[in-house]
Amino acid sequence: MKALIVEQVAGRNEMKPGEYPDPKAKEGEVLVKIEATALNRADLMQKEGKYPPPKGVTPILGLEMAGTVEKLGSKVKGVSVGDRVCGLLPGGGYAEYSTIRADHVLKIPETFSFEEAAAVPEVYLTAYQAAIWLGKLAKSETILIHAGASGVGTAAIQLVRELRKARIITTTGSGLKCELTASLGSDLCINYNDENFGLSIQDTFGENCVNVIIDFVGSPYWEKNMNVLAMDGRVVYLSFLGGTKVKEMNLSPILRKRLTIMGSTLRNRSDEYKSELVAAFKKDTETLFEKEKLKPIIDSVFDWKDVEAAHDRMKNNLNAGKIILNGM
Amino acid sequence: MKALIVEQVAGRNEMKPGEYPDPKAKEGEVLVKIEATALNRADLMQKEGKYPPPKGVTPILGLEMAGTVEKLGSKVKGVSVGDRVCGLLPGGGYAEYSTIRADHVLKIPETFSFEEAAAVPEVYLTAYQAAIWLGKLAKSETILIHAGASGVGTAAIQLVRELRKARIITTTGSGLKCELTASLGSDLCINYNDENFGLSIQDTFGENCVNVIIDFVGSPYWEKNMNVLAMDGRVVYLSFLGGTKVKEMNLSPILRKRLTIMGSTLRNRSDEYKSELVAAFKKDTETLFEKEKLKPIIDSVFDWKDVEAAHDRMKNNLNAGKIILNGM
Repeated sequence: MKALIVEQVAGRNEMKPGEYPDPKAKEGEVLVKIEATALNRADLMQKEGKYPPPKGVTPILGLEMAGTVEKLGSKVKGVSVGDRVCGLLPGGGYAEYSTIRADHVLKIPETFSFEEAAAVPEVYLTAYQAAIWLGKLAKSETILIHAGASGVGTAAIQLVRELRKARIITTTGSGLKCELTASLGSDLCINYNDENFGLSIQDTFGENCVNVIIDFVGSPYWEKNMNVLAMDGRVVYLSFLGGTKVKEMNLSPILRKRLTIMGSTLRNRSDEYKSELVAAFKKDTETLFEKEKLKPIIDSVFDWKDVEAAHDRMKNNLNAGKIILNGM
Repeated sequence: MKALIVEQVAGRNEMKPGEYPDPKAKEGEVLVKIEATALNRADLMQKEGKYPPPKGVTPILGLEMAGTVEKLGSKVKGVSVGDRVCGLLPGGGYAEYSTIRADHVLKIPETFSFEEAAAVPEVYLTAYQAAIWLGKLAKSETILIHAGASGVGTAAIQLVRELRKARIITTTGSGLKCELTASLGSDLCINYNDENFGLSIQDTFGENCVNVIIDFVGSPYWEKNMNVLAMDGRVVYLSFLGGTKVKEMNLSPILRKRLTIMGSTLRNRSDEYKSELVAAFKKDTETLFEKEKLKPIIDSVFDWKDVEAAHDRMKNNLNAGKIILNGM
């Protein structure tokens, strides 16, 4: 099959199309002809050699895909040849074909294109895991979603709005992005280039008012996060894009507010964990995609030949929502 | 009733006996004649004015007691007049009488004296909450218990030994204390005055081998804790006796190892939380106290008139196990 392979070109890692062995569906797996895939920040890191794939996983980039089931492995239940499906992959999305466990598959609603479906798995499962599973956000609580206009951010806003009816605060880096998060249901949106989010939240909703934080930023936000958290508050870290070193960190809020601070990634979780997460997600979201209550925000769709331009768009933080690559 | 009241004497806060209004058992509560109470570090802090009691709670010190039920409030189930009981208090243990919710009460086994029973509630409920409820220690996992010879430390060793059969590592500050924790079932005991616990653990059991840490120390142990934790490791902070400021904190293990870092105190939890904790604890430990599988380590028993000497003993870290005060 065709696949995009990372090669060194003039001292820079670039993706080039090449030939790669066809994957085969093992027991419990299905073979999918990929019609669209979506970019994730992990792809950029992996391309630079900074985020190697887990043991036993293909070196081909791509953590999610949408396509058509072409073959079934043995003992597959609930998925048929011809089904339009999307799903999370540990790697291998930038290719013509991929295998995936049948219990990791999400069926694509009829109203969704493959491009839209490719934007679903990573962001919605990550946001669901962070806000609902790990953050245990309850009704009438308040959630602070950093990078609110990102793929995971926009998915988190929608999920929280539909599943928890909690108060939603978002931070983003521009007025346009703030408009986007507000239109999705964010009650307060803070442009971090103009305002100190800690003070803005305190001024609007009072001190110690945030029950759950989803953070991608890390050290620059540590202290402000600690300050806005309520008693029994929870922080879920999904990445540390702003850095990992905190100077003069003060531990005392952890005890004084009985905080829980968690780090989580999805990619290197066990198959069983992912199956449980997918099952819980399906049960909770059921018809919400069909009814377009949950609708991925697509930033742009690129042809696979323009993969480097797509990567540059993400690298320069120009996207609001997901960047999609059409199938090879 | 008689009670010990904090007074300023020559610029120092001391406890003096005085008269205090008798407490009255409200709905769901029982009145207990206190026969013994036990010291907690929080008492020392409260005496210094650094740990004020939660809203609505008596200013009398004392977070636990053992005694005899003297009166029942309305709607009390499962507790009778004359029962020998012990339990956790939000305050008021250094007194002749206290009220307590009937569902916060633990029955005293026949083989236990009041002095032994007074040593049970705070340390066993705290250790149970940290290792089992919050730490979610599983069979065949490894737990690191700092301050292993402390009241909570010794209770945690016993509980883990009986309920989880996990590998137990402890740190203490002397060879004698190490002998104590080893005799209780600690598989590796490290004297932190002689050894770097991070290196000792790594040398003995390998890198990234600790699943749960119970820590009372804080900043001096932060980095070493992060280093020894395994994937999906959990840290439960119960106090920060060694300080709260970390000069150069590196957040990256939180994400790389998918850690969960929690702070927890028992005193200011809701009544419902405490009821659930007590019920779960009773169910899990059932006959273990009667069979002396769980047996509080008593350091020393003081007459209430010698309360200041008892406090000095704790302040100077001379105790291994609980310090008990006899009833007034």
